[in-house]
Amino acid sequence: MNQKQQATAKARTAISPTREENYAEWYQQVIKAADLAENSSVRGCMVIKPWGFAIWENIQRVLNSKFKATGHRNAYFPLFIPLSYLQAEADHVEGFAKECAVVTHHRLAPGPDGKLVPTGELEEPLIVRPTSETIIGVSFAKWVESWRDLPLLINQWANVVRWEMRTRLFLRTTEFLWQEGHTAHATADEAVAETMTMLDVYADFAENWMAMPVIRGEKTDGERFPGAVDTYCIEAMMQDRKALQAGTSHFLGQNFAKSSGIQFTAQDGVLQHAWTTSWGVSTRLIGGLIMTHADDDGLVLPPKLAPAHIVILPILRDDGSKDAVLTWCRALKADLEKHVYDGQCVQVELDDRDLRGGDKTWQWVKRGIPLRVEVGPRDMEAGVVTLFRRDRGVKDKQAVARDEFVGEVVALLDEMQAGLLDRARAFRSAHTRVINTKAEFESYFAAPAVAEGVPTPIHGGFAWSHFCGDPAVEEEIKDALGVTVRCIPIDDADCPGGAGGTPGECVWTGRPSPRRVVFAKAY
Amino acid sequence: MNQKQQATAKARTAISPTREENYAEWYQQVIKAADLAENSSVRGCMVIKPWGFAIWENIQRVLNSKFKATGHRNAYFPLFIPLSYLQAEADHVEGFAKECAVVTHHRLAPGPDGKLVPTGELEEPLIVRPTSETIIGVSFAKWVESWRDLPLLINQWANVVRWEMRTRLFLRTTEFLWQEGHTAHATADEAVAETMTMLDVYADFAENWMAMPVIRGEKTDGERFPGAVDTYCIEAMMQDRKALQAGTSHFLGQNFAKSSGIQFTAQDGVLQHAWTTSWGVSTRLIGGLIMTHADDDGLVLPPKLAPAHIVILPILRDDGSKDAVLTWCRALKADLEKHVYDGQCVQVELDDRDLRGGDKTWQWVKRGIPLRVEVGPRDMEAGVVTLFRRDRGVKDKQAVARDEFVGEVVALLDEMQAGLLDRARAFRSAHTRVINTKAEFESYFAAPAVAEGVPTPIHGGFAWSHFCGDPAVEEEIKDALGVTVRCIPIDDADCPGGAGGTPGECVWTGRPSPRRVVFAKAY
Repeated sequence: MNQKQQATAKARTAISPTREENYAEWYQQVIKAADLAENSSVRGCMVIKPWGFAIWENIQRVLNSKFKATGHRNAYFPLFIPLSYLQAEADHVEGFAKECAVVTHHRLAPGPDGKLVPTGELEEPLIVRPTSETIIGVSFAKWVESWRDLPLLINQWANVVRWEMRTRLFLRTTEFLWQEGHTAHATADEAVAETMTMLDVYADFAENWMAMPVIRGEKTDGERFPGAVDTYCIEAMMQDRKALQAGTSHFLGQNFAKSSGIQFTAQDGVLQHAWTTSWGVSTRLIGGLIMTHADDDGLVLPPKLAPAHIVILPILRDDGSKDAVLTWCRALKADLEKHVYDGQCVQVELDDRDLRGGDKTWQWVKRGIPLRVEVGPRDMEAGVVTLFRRDRGVKDKQAVARDEFVGEVVALLDEMQAGLLDRARAFRSAHTRVINTKAEFESYFAAPAVAEGVPTPIHGGFAWSHFCGDPAVEEEIKDALGVTVRCIPIDDADCPGGAGGTPGECVWTGRPSPRRVVFAKAY
Repeated sequence: MNQKQQATAKARTAISPTREENYAEWYQQVIKAADLAENSSVRGCMVIKPWGFAIWENIQRVLNSKFKATGHRNAYFPLFIPLSYLQAEADHVEGFAKECAVVTHHRLAPGPDGKLVPTGELEEPLIVRPTSETIIGVSFAKWVESWRDLPLLINQWANVVRWEMRTRLFLRTTEFLWQEGHTAHATADEAVAETMTMLDVYADFAENWMAMPVIRGEKTDGERFPGAVDTYCIEAMMQDRKALQAGTSHFLGQNFAKSSGIQFTAQDGVLQHAWTTSWGVSTRLIGGLIMTHADDDGLVLPPKLAPAHIVILPILRDDGSKDAVLTWCRALKADLEKHVYDGQCVQVELDDRDLRGGDKTWQWVKRGIPLRVEVGPRDMEAGVVTLFRRDRGVKDKQAVARDEFVGEVVALLDEMQAGLLDRARAFRSAHTRVINTKAEFESYFAAPAVAEGVPTPIHGGFAWSHFCGDPAVEEEIKDALGVTVRCIPIDDADCPGGAGGTPGECVWTGRPSPRRVVFAKAY
């Protein structure tokens, strides 16, 4: 590309800076341009704007149907956790003590200088839930008496608070929205099976709705949920080749059952502690969605999670054709909405605002709507629409006969959904390598850590390497390269060559390793 | 009824005590028997159990579609409000200062005795939102620049906290779930129109989904939302003849726009403050639902809000008919679910648990499921089902041909929905009176106030009486009789004789009154 071409290409770019120029800042600008969310003036808390919240509502709708299909029911538990409850599980409270919002008073009254100050001190401080194992455990202990009450399969959609020092929209915020599943079972086997079932639900959702390929695996000791026996996760690769933990599913053993007193009389009459699990995904998924698909023109939405699938932009001229074009567009909208895509009516926006065409177009491009359709007087007369696909370049367009478009709209959305997943899979493959030597491992991850305002450094991506399992070694690698074990993968189909499961020698120490793990820099 | 009949009737009663014996306790027992919710061990916070939460999800689904149809979009704002924001509107902070949960610290660390104590004191205390006018106002101030940005029509589903000293499940809890609409407009007229539109949405929902008749009206000065110019409400009569405020819609004038700085450049180029509104309903509605329809056998659900419409109870005998009966019931379920009721598939539960028939039956009766269908081997052979309607007595049943039942199920649900509204309207009419003299007013409301553990006292119900409008008089009536002005009604169709709108003399003072208001004891 010569200099003039570069300048033209630059002028077309909706998001500044580009991914290549500064990935972290590009991410913020995509969120702003797509009108998804913004920082509030309350430390670390975000405002989720309507377009962003509509994506979350779609995530909720799909996951709710999956949770229901696997036998779970929604319920709601208190926002506040008495300090003594949180303390009942020692590892758990240690994991969350450093990031708790603490309620200490229950009213305000004028202080000595007349200004309002907290008063009515509570006998016991209340913690704003960072997660709800302990408070839900108290209810489960009441609800469970006999083996007939098990399994108990509950989910909650809620806000939670973790006092993070460095926050970033969607990825890490002080308050965030999530769902947390909590289940109790009569045997360890059943609880482990539940843990894996829900991990699979998350993987299925990530791949087939978010079009975001993920690796399912187990966490190492250091990354385990505080209080869990085993933590499983799904890990996705973002466009800067870093990993994003997109969901977790925990086998909690009898730890929380013991601290909360969840006991049942088994079929043989013996009183036992139940086996519990918990699992969750959060508004962080929206961060993953953005960083998997968005480009230098803005957001790109997989059709299955788009708040609207199609926008119709009528070209309204003052030549007397206006009313006819609008009527024609309304009929087109009505015909499109008769079609069902992924269990919902196709959602169509008709944007007849009195705005410059270019501004309007760019707004919808940046918001990532899958299909854009322009209709002018001549299109109308010819019975065609001009169709723009968001998964292609901004200027790529085609004229399609109106009825053909309507008839094939669902197939087209399916094709785009599949195409986004393919593209993301290809990206991950291109940046995944089997690495056997420390030298190669070091050079693969050699780029400096990403910092705000600094151009995105190029580094490798995912490395499938042998690891001896020693937490001290894991810490050493992290300090040296900023790289962590993302997971111990469950299946090896994603490992180049498929040889992830055979024993070998640790890439860092040379000590024996039972299998390869996935190393990466991570969010 | 003779003594023996009374004893038999008593034995049939599922809920103890009955409404007549102790209304307040009956309410708690219905909630327990229907498995809707329970008190948590966190002061004043409730746990909403799956059956109760499913009712709330139906409320959300219906209201969401109504909010969308009136142009509103959902969003999400922070849980925490900095103290200084809450203080920006003087009346507002005064109204909520006495019931605020205050976050003062952001971590826990071991204290002198080794126990964890709050540490990391915040520079500015954060209030857990009791309502979100002030925090949403800050966002609106950023979002609104020109008249083109108006109207701004936003809704949020959220948890809120008000530190209530006396709590009761659903009706008044420290944490509750609600929706809060917040809108900004270019003119006072538009904001007033919005206030009334949303009041009508609430009234429509209450009457045509909850089957709970309501009176729409304006609040007196003393009952106005802190910071509002005008507060409108819907008021329903419960079965103890007390009023329940079921939803409110506030015209906020420019009060919050001034305190939050929501300004816009009008079409004439002049910078102006916007006019705002807010409106909300909460999980309190579920309390209203219970107290409008439940009876001495448990909950009665209006079909449009029931988590399931029909339960099929197969009668499973060890005579070899078991599999055939189950297969037959599954086919019945599938055929019923092909029908659409109120925009959703008919929801059918097939309860084949290994439980005594009587226990199973009573569980579903208490949970208020509209239709119960029993199918035994002989029913199957005859091609009939035994049908029980929850809106009739527990023993009332009819044999209906299977296909006739399937074909008419939607009409039957419609009939039950309409019947519940008619019954509630008739109840309200029977306990509403036009009262013109102080003596009659006093005797109408003469019963002592209801207290826990005390049998429900009989008192009048709603009184349409003249009122001079003096807040001191309102206070005097409240002190004397425990009666308040529920609202200044908007329309007089519900006033016996319809003469609510003509001037007269105050029932308490004899002073001039422009129109009648509705007086009642209230929750």
